Amino acid sequence: MLKGNMLIAQGGGPTPVINSSLLGAVREAKRHPEAIETIYGARYGAEGILAGDLIDLGAVPTEQLDLLARTPASAIGSCRRKLTDADYPDVLECFKKFNIRYFFYNGGNDSMDTCNKVYELAKAAGYELRVIGIPKTIDNDLAVTDHCPGFGSAAKYAAASALELAQDVAALPIHVVVMEMMGRNAGWITAASALFTGLMPCEHLVYLPETDFDKDEFLAAVKEKWAKGRGLLVTVSEGIHYAGGVPVADSGIVDGFGHKVPGGAAQTLSDMIMNELGLKSRSEKPGLLGRTSVALMSGTDRDEAELAGATAVKSAVEGESGWMVGFKTEREPEYRSETILIPLAEVANAEKTFPLEWITPGGVTDEFRSYCLPLIGEYDSRFVNLR
Amino acid sequence: MLKGNMLIAQGGGPTPVINSSLLGAVREAKRHPEAIETIYGARYGAEGILAGDLIDLGAVPTEQLDLLARTPASAIGSCRRKLTDADYPDVLECFKKFNIRYFFYNGGNDSMDTCNKVYELAKAAGYELRVIGIPKTIDNDLAVTDHCPGFGSAAKYAAASALELAQDVAALPIHVVVMEMMGRNAGWITAASALFTGLMPCEHLVYLPETDFDKDEFLAAVKEKWAKGRGLLVTVSEGIHYAGGVPVADSGIVDGFGHKVPGGAAQTLSDMIMNELGLKSRSEKPGLLGRTSVALMSGTDRDEAELAGATAVKSAVEGESGWMVGFKTEREPEYRSETILIPLAEVANAEKTFPLEWITPGGVTDEFRSYCLPLIGEYDSRFVNLR
Repeated sequence: MLKGNMLIAQGGGPTPVINSSLLGAVREAKRHPEAIETIYGARYGAEGILAGDLIDLGAVPTEQLDLLARTPASAIGSCRRKLTDADYPDVLECFKKFNIRYFFYNGGNDSMDTCNKVYELAKAAGYELRVIGIPKTIDNDLAVTDHCPGFGSAAKYAAASALELAQDVAALPIHVVVMEMMGRNAGWITAASALFTGLMPCEHLVYLPETDFDKDEFLAAVKEKWAKGRGLLVTVSEGIHYAGGVPVADSGIVDGFGHKVPGGAAQTLSDMIMNELGLKSRSEKPGLLGRTSVALMSGTDRDEAELAGATAVKSAVEGESGWMVGFKTEREPEYRSETILIPLAEVANAEKTFPLEWITPGGVTDEFRSYCLPLIGEYDSRFVNLR
Repeated sequence: MLKGNMLIAQGGGPTPVINSSLLGAVREAKRHPEAIETIYGARYGAEGILAGDLIDLGAVPTEQLDLLARTPASAIGSCRRKLTDADYPDVLECFKKFNIRYFFYNGGNDSMDTCNKVYELAKAAGYELRVIGIPKTIDNDLAVTDHCPGFGSAAKYAAASALELAQDVAALPIHVVVMEMMGRNAGWITAASALFTGLMPCEHLVYLPETDFDKDEFLAAVKEKWAKGRGLLVTVSEGIHYAGGVPVADSGIVDGFGHKVPGGAAQTLSDMIMNELGLKSRSEKPGLLGRTSVALMSGTDRDEAELAGATAVKSAVEGESGWMVGFKTEREPEYRSETILIPLAEVANAEKTFPLEWITPGGVTDEFRSYCLPLIGEYDSRFVNLR
């Protein structure tokens, strides 16, 4: 039995349920005192590892720990820093200093790449270490796994927000409303905004970043839908682009780090509708609220996130290393999911975008709806329209 | 006993609970068959009255009617049309044609003005009509009443969204996050985003439209708060303006109706922070989601909205006319509210903006928090931060 301390870190953008994975991991670790002595968390992700700035999570009172299940964002802190080759000796240094023998990185594809490198590095250095990745991303763009913890909640937010907004759009049909959803390269969240299109009292158009945006087709579709007199909701991904990858929205700003700052896609389309069609239009951009809403957290997502954290720790204690926890599912006759272990190398830096065959002109197919619906957990979609 | 038909109309922008007022009015009307025969709703507000396009609400099955309590937006439709003097003969025509003897208009200050004119008109024409206004506005800007149905839910949305977003802002403090709230002239909703400032794990700045926005002071405040290293959330009203009423954000677009289209205040401040301070920044604009969220509907608000609808009908049946239903409250030792009747003339076109004495530099006072907190109903503000 490998005995030593454990370190868990949260990487990249938070999700509503990443803290549930942390909770699952810590609870499971406490069940294995024969293997895991001190349970450390890295303060602000990779930054904490490099600085040896760790939190003793075993010392956190249970009633505090339990609140992780309802706390959005990263309770131990996260960062956008991507570890480079030059950083890895410092990582190993930290592991040796704190006798870390179990390492869990909870993140997206960047983090799984880091996880994989740490795994290879320790092996090459002859340092005994068990490494397991815990998946986390609202974007649902990790390879191999059926879906990622974090997506179910972001999808529920998108689906519920669009359906509830549609009530307003239809009740006072004076403007075309354009709503922007997160997801720069992957359209999963935007697609989820169309989960209840069939229940909407207004027309609905959806645009994902997986296909090129065509301005003329868009304006023609808006004109046609608007003419029906039921009101029109348009939901778009922040990352929509014209042919050749030219962004639809570009702020023209280069930030202090030299990165081009994206513009507002919804605002740009809304301006386009007003300028080119002479219709009233307004735009909404809930942005980060789509990954922080507690009320629209998916119960299924939350439970799976906790299970992913627990499974990572349990597997490592049982001797596994070099894997990411993933999910295998059945949807018929009813939704069931179970965890699987996927080689880190298969998910590192791979990106699973939205399937092209699930995209229709201005919409998504019912195959996607069948895929997505069980992930959002309970949601009461019954509304009344007496008009 | 005045006997005849009843007409209820919804006016202006919807709220999450305007349909609860409709529900309260219809339920109460059904209790008075001795006075009210047919219960009509105007399809799309004033448009429906002018066109004689009415809905028989008494024929709606109970299980459909009950869904009004959870349906955001205007279930019988609303419009932005303001009735002019030229329209009033058609209004009276409609009332006569359908033998309307009880008229209820559920709206904001514009609608109360309409209500008052209809009341005066019927009196002048010798047409026996009972007229009562039912207050509705997320903006909380109606005079005399302690608060307006609709505000509690919008305030809950603002308060919860800001506190939950603050968890994200602090967990990954890489950018100043600016969030825009609805309310062009009145800062009540934006102020509500500061309800839980004391619980936030990051710094927080708040700007309302009741005072002039000063760019230099703003940038200095951002710089100072950012330097504390805890992350920074800025919440602003869509209507913030410089001295002289010059809007901070101007889209430069004139819409098809000749109206200047406002720009995005949050996006403008976010760009300002990047350009002038060289910090990373992003903006969120939940916009209409702040008045359509079912999950963040305030239970207190919902109950009061239903009571306002019921009270209007009950009062009219008892012989009252020319009033708006309002609320009188006590907050100590615990929150209690009761309905009152306010002369329509006192609320018509009057606007109650946010009290200047409740505004501090970049924030609001605890007096406001004591005023607002009971209105949002139940909300669990417990989150854990292990950093």
